[in-house]
Amino acid sequence: MQDDSRIEDVVSTLEAQLPEALERLKEFLRIPSVSTDPAHAGDVRAAAEWLCAELQGLGFLASVRPTPGHPMVVAHSPKGNRRPLLFYGHYDVQPVDPLALWDRPPFEPMIEETADGPVIRGRGAADDKGQLMTFVEAFRAWKTVHGALPTDLVLLFEGEEESGSPSLQPFLRENAEELRADLAMICDTGLYSDGRPAMTTQLRGLLGEEIVVRGADRDLHSGSFGGLAANPIQILVNALATVKDAGGHVTLPGFYDGVEELSDELRADWQDLGFDAAEFLARVGLKHPVGETGRTGLEMVWNRPTFEINGITGGYTGDGFKTVLPAEARAKVSFRLTGTQNPEAIRVAFRAHVRAAIPDDCTVEFHGHGASRASRMDTSDPAFAAAKQALSQEWGREAAYIGAGGSIPVAGDFKEILGMDSLLIGFGRDDDRIHSPNEKYNLESFAKGARSWARILAALA
Amino acid sequence: MQDDSRIEDVVSTLEAQLPEALERLKEFLRIPSVSTDPAHAGDVRAAAEWLCAELQGLGFLASVRPTPGHPMVVAHSPKGNRRPLLFYGHYDVQPVDPLALWDRPPFEPMIEETADGPVIRGRGAADDKGQLMTFVEAFRAWKTVHGALPTDLVLLFEGEEESGSPSLQPFLRENAEELRADLAMICDTGLYSDGRPAMTTQLRGLLGEEIVVRGADRDLHSGSFGGLAANPIQILVNALATVKDAGGHVTLPGFYDGVEELSDELRADWQDLGFDAAEFLARVGLKHPVGETGRTGLEMVWNRPTFEINGITGGYTGDGFKTVLPAEARAKVSFRLTGTQNPEAIRVAFRAHVRAAIPDDCTVEFHGHGASRASRMDTSDPAFAAAKQALSQEWGREAAYIGAGGSIPVAGDFKEILGMDSLLIGFGRDDDRIHSPNEKYNLESFAKGARSWARILAALA
Repeated sequence: MQDDSRIEDVVSTLEAQLPEALERLKEFLRIPSVSTDPAHAGDVRAAAEWLCAELQGLGFLASVRPTPGHPMVVAHSPKGNRRPLLFYGHYDVQPVDPLALWDRPPFEPMIEETADGPVIRGRGAADDKGQLMTFVEAFRAWKTVHGALPTDLVLLFEGEEESGSPSLQPFLRENAEELRADLAMICDTGLYSDGRPAMTTQLRGLLGEEIVVRGADRDLHSGSFGGLAANPIQILVNALATVKDAGGHVTLPGFYDGVEELSDELRADWQDLGFDAAEFLARVGLKHPVGETGRTGLEMVWNRPTFEINGITGGYTGDGFKTVLPAEARAKVSFRLTGTQNPEAIRVAFRAHVRAAIPDDCTVEFHGHGASRASRMDTSDPAFAAAKQALSQEWGREAAYIGAGGSIPVAGDFKEILGMDSLLIGFGRDDDRIHSPNEKYNLESFAKGARSWARILAALA
Repeated sequence: MQDDSRIEDVVSTLEAQLPEALERLKEFLRIPSVSTDPAHAGDVRAAAEWLCAELQGLGFLASVRPTPGHPMVVAHSPKGNRRPLLFYGHYDVQPVDPLALWDRPPFEPMIEETADGPVIRGRGAADDKGQLMTFVEAFRAWKTVHGALPTDLVLLFEGEEESGSPSLQPFLRENAEELRADLAMICDTGLYSDGRPAMTTQLRGLLGEEIVVRGADRDLHSGSFGGLAANPIQILVNALATVKDAGGHVTLPGFYDGVEELSDELRADWQDLGFDAAEFLARVGLKHPVGETGRTGLEMVWNRPTFEINGITGGYTGDGFKTVLPAEARAKVSFRLTGTQNPEAIRVAFRAHVRAAIPDDCTVEFHGHGASRASRMDTSDPAFAAAKQALSQEWGREAAYIGAGGSIPVAGDFKEILGMDSLLIGFGRDDDRIHSPNEKYNLESFAKGARSWARILAALA
């Protein structure tokens, strides 16, 4: 189906118009669309409107669609007889704290030269605004060169991905007819760590929980009450210290139900990637893998579940010292899930574990923060091979099937609600500092990413 | 030495002038002298200057004296031939957070009617501005009625009591000749819980530590690194969960060296106080004593050491959720000490305990926050009996010798550096909410407190 000259014209147009594309990306990155912080709700909406206007400018029938939370942006190419594809990205970003650790303001993006070539730096550069703009720019180039796209498209952009996607499932259910396509393209993953192009074929699931332990009805003086009255921080700490044992195993009953061992084939493929856990950790100033004994580094992050404390607070945390015995303590924790682990069953087991540590004159309150199962793609679909070939051509290296330790619940939702598989193709790098201060996206990722999509569009048309 | 008519005139003058005394206290309470917060340094100084001006107005030779931290206020009565006494109080206050839990602004003091009679509410009302003004008002009344005080006085007011008193010991050493007196009067303690007047004859010591655990050189995405990279919150939590065992015993080696059992006499005296731990805890919404098994409630707070986590923070603690694996986590902890426990030896043991939990690719940093031994007074000094009698007379109830779970390190410093014993007499109540939102001081405490000092001055003259 591919016509080489048609594609090469699109690719060279993308190369020629890179400066304008970067200006558009900068404009998008200046909008502080932090979805988890209610103070930024207006900015999230502004980002949706910016994106909608861009798509309308490319001839899409695009609209900002309300949800009970932040809006969706939905766009359609004018209908033809060609095979429809759905593209997904998210226009919201992570919070920026700790702000003091940013070298420059997070929402004033700049191009910087680095030892690895130029990068664009700012919150959302890689996750996910820079990534979603790779396919938007590919669409633009196809339209510019050939006046039309090689296939019909449905585009879906979410504004709640960084805050648990509360509106996504209801929206997919309510708009299933409109959104149904043969295949979804999700651009929110990365290259393999050495820069090899990759398609992510398995993802860990996620379960988030927030815990509030309360003791006395007021903060107490630790002199008057210390040793006599329950300390909610100590109770919380004791509960969280025992979720994992000394060997890194989660101790909750039934936790490992559904965890699957790697197939021999995938184990061999991953072995071939040459992952070096010590080298990977050295890049962030660490040395030793902390996961379960007897597991390789890639297994630990791609194929084994884990428990992490993501935030904790209680008592006096300002400058100086205060001998308070606080009335409450809070933590945010998450589990990464693999295989067919059931997030709801694990939520129940976790809550029971915490409750067992709470004395009967104290209370505990739980807030659920999203639950998604792990995903594993069926790579025997010919679209996987076609996209892999297009990717390999653009990057000049054999594309790899890899796993991901992060969660992209939308892939599971597309399968379950819309009955379609997902191709998870992205161009992020391990050192992009997503979710951290000084996030960046390499210009090579942005430029080759857009060209990759231009080729994949042709290959799947 | 007492002349009943001389005292009764002073007492009735204090009664008549209570409204003016309350206005002076309100003025003092309006100054937000939070010593632990560098942003309030100017306010701390303003409180010192206010107090100095008050004392000058009473004929004292008073001055604000610099230290490397917040200043001291030192005042002397014109020298005579009488026995000198030293009075101590602190003019700094605790932070006010969480501010949202205050019913009214903490530095806009008001008189309120309550079921227990009128109170003055505001930060510092009981700890320690209201208390120190009891003896200042007693001095004023003596001067008003008799033109002079019944004894020579040295007054010392500190502005760093709520932030570990870093300047106190050096100041006492450098000014030992000027400050030396036969006996110190410290007004920073309370009535016994049922309102019985009391003299505190033993105090727990305090050791404060701040811990900073650092892992990766940046915040990480828990999807990309979770299960592989060390989590500083988990490391900190694991270290803090094992300082005490399930029976409430501190596990640090040598921790209980120097802890003393109660004498039979004191055990009997305390038994006579009729302390009901369940009733005491019920006032703050709790039920069960959590200290070591086999100890009475009063032993737990007055005669047994303890470990408390006073503050903890790490990772994302804002609204919503962030799947971060943070670069660092922090905690503030303290030990309350009894008998002859050595704070520096315990600091060493605690740091060793925490260090043993730190993987070699992570780091830990400690900040010491003050260390003081426990104090026990020699009640065979006749001044104890004389003051006890004066107190009993004012309150119409037999004054008691009690313990205190809090630390008043200045008592130990006076003994060690100035070679003098301390009479710890105060009028606070258990429900004063010191260190908590909505702190108050009963007007009965303020009024009878001032009259008590008027009588004690005569008794010790």
